[in-house]
Amino acid sequence: MSVRPTRGEGEQNSDPRIERSRRVIQEATVDELASVGYGGLRIESIARRAGVGKATIYRHWSGKQDLVESTLAMIKEDMVAPGEGTVRERVTSILTWLASYLTDSRASSVMPALVSAAQFDKSVAEFHFRFTSERRHAMIDLLSEGVQTGELRSDLDAELAAEMLAGVLFYRRLMTDRPFPSEEVGNLVATVLGSAD
Amino acid sequence: MSVRPTRGEGEQNSDPRIERSRRVIQEATVDELASVGYGGLRIESIARRAGVGKATIYRHWSGKQDLVESTLAMIKEDMVAPGEGTVRERVTSILTWLASYLTDSRASSVMPALVSAAQFDKSVAEFHFRFTSERRHAMIDLLSEGVQTGELRSDLDAELAAEMLAGVLFYRRLMTDRPFPSEEVGNLVATVLGSAD
Repeated sequence: MSVRPTRGEGEQNSDPRIERSRRVIQEATVDELASVGYGGLRIESIARRAGVGKATIYRHWSGKQDLVESTLAMIKEDMVAPGEGTVRERVTSILTWLASYLTDSRASSVMPALVSAAQFDKSVAEFHFRFTSERRHAMIDLLSEGVQTGELRSDLDAELAAEMLAGVLFYRRLMTDRPFPSEEVGNLVATVLGSAD
Repeated sequence: MSVRPTRGEGEQNSDPRIERSRRVIQEATVDELASVGYGGLRIESIARRAGVGKATIYRHWSGKQDLVESTLAMIKEDMVAPGEGTVRERVTSILTWLASYLTDSRASSVMPALVSAAQFDKSVAEFHFRFTSERRHAMIDLLSEGVQTGELRSDLDAELAAEMLAGVLFYRRLMTDRPFPSEEVGNLVATVLGSAD
């Protein structure tokens, strides 16, 4: 995964060196999560991997959870940019992105780490479930729009359909060793939404 | 979760005291997985929780992985007993069991622990994916039977349908804080398989 720099709340600095430093630290966070999980994550190891001092990390983030949350925020930002087109096209575009993200085992190993940590750590649970909920609601809204405009069939259960679509992708990533291929997303969308007229 | 005793390969002993001791140890394994995850699991802590000596555990199992695997085997045994009835009824029965299992947060916290450990530990990955694959194939076979006998529509993609059904349940358990209610399984089955004629 190529991570994009995100900016802390209220921070307007767009100095390219600072942006670059933030990006390198977020990349290192993804790598550390992939190799030790959330429980084993240490600011010191991230700093070492990123080639910066711990103080640099604490200048941008208040700690481990803040840093992981900003890394996730960046992922989410990428995700809710489905572009233009029909509802069906936008749904396909979001899921194609998600499938390809979940196929990249380095980047998506953030996910199992969070799934497990959410069992033990209330603050991880809070942000893991909140991010999922925001993505899920964006998809439900999009499907509801399709039902309202008549593009999708009127009896579609937008909530269940959203869970079926995301469900298959996460099931394949978390429960099997064969992530869902992004080329098959069109087939999945057609199965859940019905073929286009 | 109430766990049922399972027997090691070749072991035919059905002494009720031994069966009971095995059951208590498997229950303690579930509790330990729920509170510390797979990475933090220690035979010593399981023994303490079960009120037995470590030697008792090693008499039945070769170690941590063997013990966890036998606990999972017991879960799977429960699961592949869908009873009699039409394909639709058997599918509903399996998924109702799974939904209710995944709603029991103590029992099903084994799952996030395995999902995460499968990233770091090759032997955990091997048995996590093997168990999932066995359950998934049992469901695919059942759905294929329904297609062949004409009970289900001929154009049903049994593999994708199986992943949609399980996918929704695991997505809700692992990615949200609202496990799928077992009372809604009928609606899910009707959505994926189509209503009965």
